Amino acid sequence: MSSEFNREQLESVLKRRFFYAPAFEIYGGVSGLYDYGPPGCALQANIIDTWRKHFILEEDMLEVDCTMLTPHEVLKTSGHVDKFADWMCRDLKTGEIFRADHLVEEVLEARLKGDKEARGEKVEDVEEDEQKKKRKKKVKEIKAVKLDDEVVKEYETILAKIDGYSGPELGEIMEKHKIGNPATGEPLEAPMAFNLMFETAIGPSGQMKGYLRPETAQGQFLNFSKLLDFNNEKMPFASASIGKSFRNEISPRSGLLRVREFLMAEIEHFVDPENKLHPNFKSVEHVVLNFLPREVQQQGITQTSKVTVGEAVRSGMVDNETLGYFLARIYQFLLKIGANPDKVRFRQHMANEMAHYAQDCWDAELQTSYGWIECVGCADRSAYDLSVHSARTKEKLCVREPLAEPKVVEKLECEIDKKNFGPKFRKDAPKVEQWLLSRTECELEDLAKELDEKLKITVKIPETTVPEVEIPAELLKISKVKKTEHIREYIPNVIEPSFGIGRIIYSVFEHSFWTRPEDSARCVLSLPPLVAPTKVLLVPLSNHETLLPVLKLVKDKLKVKQIPFKVDDSSASIGKRYARNDELGTPFGITIDFDSLKDNSVTLRERDSTLQVRGSIDDVVDAIVRLTYEGVDWKEGTKNLESFEAKADE
Amino acid sequence: MSSEFNREQLESVLKRRFFYAPAFEIYGGVSGLYDYGPPGCALQANIIDTWRKHFILEEDMLEVDCTMLTPHEVLKTSGHVDKFADWMCRDLKTGEIFRADHLVEEVLEARLKGDKEARGEKVEDVEEDEQKKKRKKKVKEIKAVKLDDEVVKEYETILAKIDGYSGPELGEIMEKHKIGNPATGEPLEAPMAFNLMFETAIGPSGQMKGYLRPETAQGQFLNFSKLLDFNNEKMPFASASIGKSFRNEISPRSGLLRVREFLMAEIEHFVDPENKLHPNFKSVEHVVLNFLPREVQQQGITQTSKVTVGEAVRSGMVDNETLGYFLARIYQFLLKIGANPDKVRFRQHMANEMAHYAQDCWDAELQTSYGWIECVGCADRSAYDLSVHSARTKEKLCVREPLAEPKVVEKLECEIDKKNFGPKFRKDAPKVEQWLLSRTECELEDLAKELDEKLKITVKIPETTVPEVEIPAELLKISKVKKTEHIREYIPNVIEPSFGIGRIIYSVFEHSFWTRPEDSARCVLSLPPLVAPTKVLLVPLSNHETLLPVLKLVKDKLKVKQIPFKVDDSSASIGKRYARNDELGTPFGITIDFDSLKDNSVTLRERDSTLQVRGSIDDVVDAIVRLTYEGVDWKEGTKNLESFEAKADE
Repeated sequence: MSSEFNREQLESVLKRRFFYAPAFEIYGGVSGLYDYGPPGCALQANIIDTWRKHFILEEDMLEVDCTMLTPHEVLKTSGHVDKFADWMCRDLKTGEIFRADHLVEEVLEARLKGDKEARGEKVEDVEEDEQKKKRKKKVKEIKAVKLDDEVVKEYETILAKIDGYSGPELGEIMEKHKIGNPATGEPLEAPMAFNLMFETAIGPSGQMKGYLRPETAQGQFLNFSKLLDFNNEKMPFASASIGKSFRNEISPRSGLLRVREFLMAEIEHFVDPENKLHPNFKSVEHVVLNFLPREVQQQGITQTSKVTVGEAVRSGMVDNETLGYFLARIYQFLLKIGANPDKVRFRQHMANEMAHYAQDCWDAELQTSYGWIECVGCADRSAYDLSVHSARTKEKLCVREPLAEPKVVEKLECEIDKKNFGPKFRKDAPKVEQWLLSRTECELEDLAKELDEKLKITVKIPETTVPEVEIPAELLKISKVKKTEHIREYIPNVIEPSFGIGRIIYSVFEHSFWTRPEDSARCVLSLPPLVAPTKVLLVPLSNHETLLPVLKLVKDKLKVKQIPFKVDDSSASIGKRYARNDELGTPFGITIDFDSLKDNSVTLRERDSTLQVRGSIDDVVDAIVRLTYEGVDWKEGTKNLESFEAKADE
Repeated sequence: MSSEFNREQLESVLKRRFFYAPAFEIYGGVSGLYDYGPPGCALQANIIDTWRKHFILEEDMLEVDCTMLTPHEVLKTSGHVDKFADWMCRDLKTGEIFRADHLVEEVLEARLKGDKEARGEKVEDVEEDEQKKKRKKKVKEIKAVKLDDEVVKEYETILAKIDGYSGPELGEIMEKHKIGNPATGEPLEAPMAFNLMFETAIGPSGQMKGYLRPETAQGQFLNFSKLLDFNNEKMPFASASIGKSFRNEISPRSGLLRVREFLMAEIEHFVDPENKLHPNFKSVEHVVLNFLPREVQQQGITQTSKVTVGEAVRSGMVDNETLGYFLARIYQFLLKIGANPDKVRFRQHMANEMAHYAQDCWDAELQTSYGWIECVGCADRSAYDLSVHSARTKEKLCVREPLAEPKVVEKLECEIDKKNFGPKFRKDAPKVEQWLLSRTECELEDLAKELDEKLKITVKIPETTVPEVEIPAELLKISKVKKTEHIREYIPNVIEPSFGIGRIIYSVFEHSFWTRPEDSARCVLSLPPLVAPTKVLLVPLSNHETLLPVLKLVKDKLKVKQIPFKVDDSSASIGKRYARNDELGTPFGITIDFDSLKDNSVTLRERDSTLQVRGSIDDVVDAIVRLTYEGVDWKEGTKNLESFEAKADE
């Protein structure tokens, strides 16, 4: 199945059946924007419903729905205003804009291909997406040109590290290796950072700058205190959010894999930094995953190893239980909605890929004809986000926990001579006092030392009337004080599983798609019944009105059980009608024929095997419920039904 | 209940239980943006789920999910770039910005109040929202000042027509009646149109202007041809879409009722303009609605009349069956999710309220402490949207239907002397020909007349090399030709029910909120079980571990039936625990006590009546399923359970 996969054929089915289509197509389209048609929409809704049950309901997470419009200040604090950017290069003559890393990658790959041709080696034709192909066509005919061995090696090294370069580094590479506009060969401007957030103005004055959120996480962090309160101050707990996020890609490509507006489902699991055990870890420690850890990648190898999650955590490969727990749960979710287990791997981020604050990070990657695609990120973000928002807003975003036993601690404290402090500092007095009282333990140690040595402290304090404030030892004592603490206060760490739903959907399409060996034009999407857009196709053998009462009976029974179905009473042959629905991923078919009139029996057909069984309407509907929602297999689910010779499917 | 309604108390419950909260609150908030907390999010998800079943599944609608980012050109064509605006006035000294109609309304209302006080009449204190109150405080102390009778009359007339004024008209009123900044009395700039769409730039060049969609409708129109194809060319059919839309309000107020980012659910029902009958109309024609038709409003009256939908359509008050059908279905939906039938009315738009292309339009309004609120619009948009997009893109957005019998029609046609046309018009020839062939029947009639009278036509044709083209009679004949048509081609009309989910949710909160007569601090949200965020609260009588196995048994049974529940095993009294959940709208409670250990029996408590019944775990869970999802009432649903003396609820 995998070797015969034909992406063009899949894309033509997805288009023909309106799973999705370019948005604004009659206006010429806008790249990176797609609309979901009825089956795509139903599939997406079923996947979201499964996600909600698998994560939110099963684990009692707190779902929130936050706004997409986000003011500048919030995303400045989170770091997105400064760092959420790609590098772009302009061609000043043509006005074209290129994403620097993609450009370097394409040109060097093309040159290496030319080199291979010149050496007479076989060139593998890796499948490529349409846009990339088009751009390649523009690449100035790189004929078979042999390169020096050293150059080949250098190109290969650059390509292996392509995700890690800064803008200036990419600029150097482009200059050194004469990489310009592929169509003309002309040099480009040096790479400039292009922020990927869509900017807008909130309100009529035009003065409140805002962005469309690049992730749903920030809204969850900002509501931390309300959520902790809602959870009766109990830790650990998780919030979750499902919604659209935005990314103004420089040059979107690869269909649903790189788009400008996308559905995300994100979990923020808040946990005590000193205790990252997970209460349900036992239930998943036996789960075997395909791991690709950092150390292996550093050796330039992509060989994964199959290890249980329990072992992965015990050996330290995965940082902690909670992170391991989520990796297993992510895997179980992906299989539930139709990912092929042989095409799922967990890749650990390299040190230079991770944000500086991240403790550990693993991506669930799904294999497609575009390569291994990052579909779910699972990062330990430490206390970074809560800390920066708390520092910026002066609102505490922390947990206060009664200590099991009171703890006596020694702490440095400032003792201020209040009587003489006011006359000495006048207007600045409150600010100086405030400043002293808000020093950390560590800062106080330094100040105590300075006071001890110089008998005074000289410091810059913001918003005072003097450039430097001098505090003499007569007015200030800094000394160790014993205190009994009853409360422990900490900022939780965050473990964040983050799902890109569109990428998952596209990968599942590839994993589910095949053609019948007897006829390569007959395509099938083997979506699991649980997420398939429609569960049952009702096919009356003929349009004769005598069949209508039985048809109505079946419809009513399906409605009572809330099973989504469609009727196809067109005049097409039964085989054609089923073939159409195989492309839509409809797992079951019910044929109503003239025998149905005698005993209310109908035929149930299974999409993948085209096997048929027969039984009473009630038994068939029961079988469909069990096969669709209770995870029962065909043999078990149809044991009360009689095998039936296929005669109608061709 | 309605007379004692206290909005502050409701808002305090909604805030305390985190149904929703101002977004970015720790950053000071952004007006018009709200986040939904866990119960608000669950309520919203349940309402959407009910909507999807009530409309999309029950009526086989085609759901689509289109992008929010929308290019300029699309919204220019739809008319939003030019007309989706409010009027704003700036105070050049303070920089403040006011929405002109709101400002006029507030100032005149305040003056009328002052007049009443001066006349010694009782002034009713209409409840107002916080922001309006704050702004009113700023209004320069309008003391009791008596106005001339004529002025009072003029003010009242202006207030009655306040929704219908243009910007210049508002400017005249402000000048004539000296309405300036309420805080300072200073005059303001004349009203300027402020477009309410959020603008952004798509892609790195900054040259593709886009907006966040103001409604989901446009995406559905643009996909019309794909949807018709998906529906096997069958008419009528409906598409539907659920998603966020955006409106950059000048000064948002009234909590969830006027926000900048909101969830909509919209249906576009495409119908033959010559046949707006609805196949299921019979099933709703008996439904009685509260109508407030145009003619009544024109007399300045707001008295509604109760009429069946059947009668309303037959009498012509409601334009057609399909429109009437949807009004009834909207009403049924609103009741299902908890609207109070006495607080629902259907108000017809006045002629000046409707868009010029609309055939008829009715709003479902819900009564709240803010007045009657438009929650669902139901408009017959005629063929406007499909026509303008089709004209702009030259893509046909129409239905082609085989005629039952071929029809012979007489049509004017141009017969061109091709041989001499080229030499005469040279480079312009194709354009002139194209222009002639694309005239409508009506235009051809005029041209034929001109040709007949003057033996030539003189016209301006765009993009030709001459200012005017002269076509002599020798080169052109326009004459009636008989043709047999087999196909009828038409642009469908659109009937659009459009739901503002946030407004509906807020209104349902008001309709469901009350306090127990015995204790006005005990608040209850009587949300219908179907949409309540959590269906059951599990309350173990004590934390004693002997109760844990029964608790687990109940939890497992609820999980199997997929009933959302919460456990409250805190040490608070049972009464307190239930009171907390009455505020969350949880309809049922299960108490597990020491008697449960003997016979696996538990107590089921109903939120509104606080009645209790007792039975086996299985029977209680079955009762909950029937009460929640099958619309069965308490008496019927609990007939297998024994009445139980309340002793724990206080």
